[in-house]
Amino acid sequence: MSTDPPVNERATRNPDSGRTAVAVIGLGLMGGALARAFLRAGHPTTVWNRTAAKADGLVAQGAEPADSAGAAIASSPLVVICVSDNDAVRGLLEPLSGVAAGRVVVNLTSGTSAQARETAEWARREGAAYLDGAIMAAPEAIGTGDATIAYSGPRPAFDRHEPALRVLGAATHLGADPGLSSLHEAAVMGLMWNILNGFLHGAALLGSAGVDAAAFTRIAVEGIGTVTGWLPGLARQVDEGTYPAPDSTIDTHLAAMDHLIHESEAHGVSAELPRFIKALADRAVADGHGGDGYAAMVERFRASSGART
Amino acid sequence: MSTDPPVNERATRNPDSGRTAVAVIGLGLMGGALARAFLRAGHPTTVWNRTAAKADGLVAQGAEPADSAGAAIASSPLVVICVSDNDAVRGLLEPLSGVAAGRVVVNLTSGTSAQARETAEWARREGAAYLDGAIMAAPEAIGTGDATIAYSGPRPAFDRHEPALRVLGAATHLGADPGLSSLHEAAVMGLMWNILNGFLHGAALLGSAGVDAAAFTRIAVEGIGTVTGWLPGLARQVDEGTYPAPDSTIDTHLAAMDHLIHESEAHGVSAELPRFIKALADRAVADGHGGDGYAAMVERFRASSGART
Ligand SMILES: NC(=O)c1ccc[n+]([C@@H]2O[C@H](COP(=O)([O-])OP(=O)(O)OC[C@H]3O[C@@H](n4cnc5c(N)ncnc54)[C@H](OP(=O)(O)O)[C@@H]3O)[C@@H](O)[C@H]2O)c1
Ligand SMILES: NC(=O)c1ccc[n+]([C@@H]2O[C@H](COP(=O)([O-])OP(=O)(O)OC[C@H]3O[C@@H](n4cnc5c(N)ncnc54)[C@H](OP(=O)(O)O)[C@@H]3O)[C@@H](O)[C@H]2O)c1
Repeated sequence: MSTDPPVNERATRNPDSGRTAVAVIGLGLMGGALARAFLRAGHPTTVWNRTAAKADGLVAQGAEPADSAGAAIASSPLVVICVSDNDAVRGLLEPLSGVAAGRVVVNLTSGTSAQARETAEWARREGAAYLDGAIMAAPEAIGTGDATIAYSGPRPAFDRHEPALRVLGAATHLGADPGLSSLHEAAVMGLMWNILNGFLHGAALLGSAGVDAAAFTRIAVEGIGTVTGWLPGLARQVDEGTYPAPDSTIDTHLAAMDHLIHESEAHGVSAELPRFIKALADRAVADGHGGDGYAAMVERFRASSGART
Repeated sequence: MSTDPPVNERATRNPDSGRTAVAVIGLGLMGGALARAFLRAGHPTTVWNRTAAKADGLVAQGAEPADSAGAAIASSPLVVICVSDNDAVRGLLEPLSGVAAGRVVVNLTSGTSAQARETAEWARREGAAYLDGAIMAAPEAIGTGDATIAYSGPRPAFDRHEPALRVLGAATHLGADPGLSSLHEAAVMGLMWNILNGFLHGAALLGSAGVDAAAFTRIAVEGIGTVTGWLPGLARQVDEGTYPAPDSTIDTHLAAMDHLIHESEAHGVSAELPRFIKALADRAVADGHGGDGYAAMVERFRASSGART
């Protein structure tokens, strides 16, 4: 945090800036990045962190320190919370009474949709509007167009504070159910881990043949671009529930999956990931989807009870 | 195939076109697309397919039919083979003797690097130059900039025929070892299945909450773009063998993996894929990588013996 670019202290403290006053609760890696983005954009920014010293750098940049989470909430019409997890959120909010009324409380702490609904219920009791948000970015992207934050909860609350929320990154509203942002976050994170695993397994395989990961990256990025181009078509099949396969069926993928398993084994690399992928596809074939396109795998994933058959 | 756009028959038959004469062996979905691309670009094109009738449409578009695979190889300095698998390739090539000398034989049939080396050995015995190629595209992309084909084998053979090969799509040369293209193909396919699984699992999860896959696609594509931006940095860590984590460590990913497992279970969707992902990460933590960035997972994938510990 000592490497922060300088911020115009006058501007951020200027109550006449016309910008919404915001409070940021939780000043870890992500919360700190959120507070800095608000400060840079000229929002009067109140900050609070359990370990008070983490606020010092932000205060030096123009933030107003609050004595307690409750005081931070009381200070501003827009309150952003970003702490480790939702147990911490509830630990902060449950003891409070009365301070949140009329505020818009935005919880950017990662969690489940059930947790989001619980916190929304607290906000309802307290007379606050509640938005849950999922940050699809690393802290260094906050405040740039590279960050996307997806929000869910009452649309009017989102609309009212959209200009301020846009300071953090691209802002989208997913719907009124406060659980939607967590659900999207989980789905996107799942996609990300799958991509990272596929990339790193490929890097391990090619590395065994002396190809460095940087060289693999170029061809991997092309492959990612190719698959990305398929997604709208796959989505259409998923939404329609039919999986016509003009080119490659799950049956034909199986043969190529065997190649990956054999290459892995021949190169002394773990075949566990491709074996898992093939086991999923084998079961889709057993379910009668061998002649379908890959999109039919969605039925495998839908079938919770069949997951281990 | 009856919907092919018309091709200028004179031009493709014109031996004065100055374009390399090519032979295409195997006229299935992919081989047919390859032959059509050559015809459209004005290459004199000889074709052969086991089931002869599949050549008819191409002959009507100006291709020269060959009576046998051997006759096709004899016809042209550049020979492209694309059949179901490498057993079929060997079944076609092994009986031949003498016809391939001086030819450049390009095998675009999917297979393993070991199979590529076997076919290269046949070519060496026959005095032919051998290139193995991996098609990273669907048939409809062939002949467009959206198709990439990665080749491996002797560089001079690639350089000589690069203009003709570029007709099929972007052409890259990976190295002299003929096994490299299959190895890259396997790695990229692995990445693709991972992406598809991650996307389809996410679509199943969001679908359970009434979000259609088309809506998920937009946010998924953003997530893919975000991860793609991380890959060069990850590759650097993989190549350097150190995995510093300024933001999120494998330990922090574990908590988010639990969210995905819980969301899946709560929504009646299969948790098998996220459970597998978490099991991999749990073992990386057990190996001492909890404080490392996600790139450290590459060591998990490298460890073939540790795959099932
Ligand atoms: N970092 C990322 O790349 C990233 C990306 C997307 C989403 N997120 C999400 O953003 C949230 C914060 O992540 P982070 O990277 O900022 O984590 P972090 O650097 O570890 O910071 C955690 C913050 O939570 C506070 N905290 C923890 N337990 C608390 C409690 N019981 N009461 C009050 N405060 C408590 C900490 O206060 P102390 O300073 O007193 O410990 C600290 O401010 C997480 O939900 C994470 O999943 C992070
Ligand atoms: N389609 C794709 O999206 C795609 C993408 C990348 C790579 N590839 C690869 O391209 C190759 C061909 O795929 P495809 O989609 O064209 O398959 P396909 O439509 O099933 O065609 C298979 C071709 O192989 C021929 N063949 C099979 N066994 C043979 C044998 N023993 N002797 C002679 N010919 C034989 C078939 O001849 P008959 O007509 O007589 O049966 C047919 O021409 C495969 O290795 C595939 O992995 C395909």
